[in-house]
Amino acid sequence: MTQATNESSARAMLHRIKNEAGSHSPSIATLARELPAVKIEIDACFLSNPYATDLFLNYFTEEVVGTEQLRRLIEYYPSQNAILARVVAKRLGVTPETIFLGNGASEIIQAILHNFCGRKLLINLPTFSPYYEFVGPETQVIYNHLRKEEQFRLDVDRYLALIKQEQPDTIILINPNNPDGGYVTRAEVRAFLQTLRATNSRVNHVIIDESFVHFAFEDDQMALLSFADLTQEFPNVILVKSLSKDFGIAGVRVGYAIMEASKVRQLLNHGFLWNISGLAEYFLQLWARDEFMHQYNQVRTRYIGETQAFIMALSQIPGLHVYPSMANFALLELVNGRSAFDFFSHLLINHGVYTRSCSDKKGLSGEFVRIAARTPAENARILDGIQDLFRETVTSR
Amino acid sequence: MTQATNESSARAMLHRIKNEAGSHSPSIATLARELPAVKIEIDACFLSNPYATDLFLNYFTEEVVGTEQLRRLIEYYPSQNAILARVVAKRLGVTPETIFLGNGASEIIQAILHNFCGRKLLINLPTFSPYYEFVGPETQVIYNHLRKEEQFRLDVDRYLALIKQEQPDTIILINPNNPDGGYVTRAEVRAFLQTLRATNSRVNHVIIDESFVHFAFEDDQMALLSFADLTQEFPNVILVKSLSKDFGIAGVRVGYAIMEASKVRQLLNHGFLWNISGLAEYFLQLWARDEFMHQYNQVRTRYIGETQAFIMALSQIPGLHVYPSMANFALLELVNGRSAFDFFSHLLINHGVYTRSCSDKKGLSGEFVRIAARTPAENARILDGIQDLFRETVTSR
Repeated sequence: MTQATNESSARAMLHRIKNEAGSHSPSIATLARELPAVKIEIDACFLSNPYATDLFLNYFTEEVVGTEQLRRLIEYYPSQNAILARVVAKRLGVTPETIFLGNGASEIIQAILHNFCGRKLLINLPTFSPYYEFVGPETQVIYNHLRKEEQFRLDVDRYLALIKQEQPDTIILINPNNPDGGYVTRAEVRAFLQTLRATNSRVNHVIIDESFVHFAFEDDQMALLSFADLTQEFPNVILVKSLSKDFGIAGVRVGYAIMEASKVRQLLNHGFLWNISGLAEYFLQLWARDEFMHQYNQVRTRYIGETQAFIMALSQIPGLHVYPSMANFALLELVNGRSAFDFFSHLLINHGVYTRSCSDKKGLSGEFVRIAARTPAENARILDGIQDLFRETVTSR
Repeated sequence: MTQATNESSARAMLHRIKNEAGSHSPSIATLARELPAVKIEIDACFLSNPYATDLFLNYFTEEVVGTEQLRRLIEYYPSQNAILARVVAKRLGVTPETIFLGNGASEIIQAILHNFCGRKLLINLPTFSPYYEFVGPETQVIYNHLRKEEQFRLDVDRYLALIKQEQPDTIILINPNNPDGGYVTRAEVRAFLQTLRATNSRVNHVIIDESFVHFAFEDDQMALLSFADLTQEFPNVILVKSLSKDFGIAGVRVGYAIMEASKVRQLLNHGFLWNISGLAEYFLQLWARDEFMHQYNQVRTRYIGETQAFIMALSQIPGLHVYPSMANFALLELVNGRSAFDFFSHLLINHGVYTRSCSDKKGLSGEFVRIAARTPAENARILDGIQDLFRETVTSR
């Protein structure tokens, strides 16, 4: 078999795997199993801080591996949801009764959509698809289209006008947004919620997903941001947060939501009792410790700096349009005639770099790819891979 | 403070913790956090094979700890549900499309109850409470009362008559049953399902929970039993299985269900995408390996032998009535005037043995405690603790 045949069969296989995964990315483990010939060396598809993974692994290796605690967290049932809420309440600055812990944000999203979203739901597009894919049949989903020509920035006035017109029960704001990283500041979000209240809108639930907010910053110190306190000021706010991205622990499956205590009780009565694993319980205890958070904050700010430098470097490559991002990834549009699948498969097959082709993404019209920032050395290899692809002439393919 | 004051304040605290946990047992971690003065040395509340935990830990330590795989299973998103179904399909002897993997059986129970159970649900009592606690408001729960004087044995004829009379949409059979360990043989279950079909009952779903079936046996070789194949013969059967008990990995959170492919699709569309953790994915891959299963089967049969010896020893203690069990635990009734809470708190405070007081258990009238089998040395300490309690005269308390 020639090199070209290999590449073309790998591309065909990739096509199949991507189709099977629907609107979601196949996991690294799945790719490795189904396409063993392709070696993934850099995962720029999933969106996590590699230094935070190192930090967690250091603690886990130091404190758990080789001790009785490893056995305990595998053998025994973990603590119940409401008990664990107490462990993290101080860290979150809210009362434990308003905290719901989930087996990843995806479980929380599902629980919220099936319990609270009502008859009509308004969501921005493009955005994280589970929020509109997993609604029940009784809920109508309507969209607020973010505009490419406006760099996918949320136009708050147009948003408010649409809310007035459509009278949704639930609105969803992912901030920073995925896949573009667009960010609405705290002041803007608060002003928006005040206007919403003042206009007596029928919006019962405002879901704010701040899964990427640890990568955003509003000052030079890159102080840690959160919208959690808005749940106290605006009882209709449901705050959702994955802990996979910022803490680099997607495999652990853990996230949380903050909402009115009555809503938390409703979910617990629904049956969410033992949804947190022993490993996730260990993480939650770690997260409650100041020493860990101090170290975490150092790796967070380091990663933000490197991420912004990477996004800047990407934006200097001719043929790419890079949208402004306050998250740990950038949405790229290929403006040189290359297809997103071409870009994705070239980087994966020839450079071992796994990116996210966004061809299937609702609300994106054009050839889009999302790339997460990794370490500077890995980022440099991603940049090389892109330049390598762009050096090839169209006729040589 | 005197010893007596210490014990009485610990008992008061235990009362509070148990009340807070509702109808479920507080976890070991919760007890350790809330009641640090009491050292739990033997966990006879949770129901798992300690040798299977050892086996898993050996593999994990050998293959994962200190390698890149540890990082991978913490950092990356695990594979999606439908992909992992393929990994275990051969082991289960069914097609992947009929397998639904869960973050513990508790997630599966919740998913089934909120998607398939219909208007009326029939369940035996006493049994595992989440099956009737977490039904939605639209479902009426009716009970088939297992009788103490019949040793909680399921009377199939009376069961069928009740089904005919009540016309439930869903019936639930936990086999072996929890908390008593009562077992209905494969031949009896199959005959029951045939009769149900022949009588054109309106039962749309027969949920069989076989979470404890690896501890049951029908022949001298203690061959591994399962009711999984009945899903192929009777499409209304939904098989549920925790993997926490038999494999000793409650902290990992993993279980599965086998049901018609259309039902699996419905659940996946509901949003169960990334509900399996990296650690659980590692377990599923291990479980698919013949070498692991061979070793597992050795520790399984060893544990069954020791469990049955322990149950026999318990049944010889005057003052206790022990109900027949094919699971890895025994339901004890205190017939000497002792209360279940007395028994539970004495064993915990004075012997570090954590048992399950069943005073709160629906369908049990009397003073009941459930005790799980551990290793022979631990079982001997449990027996000593009970004899120690029973030696005390009532007036000395």
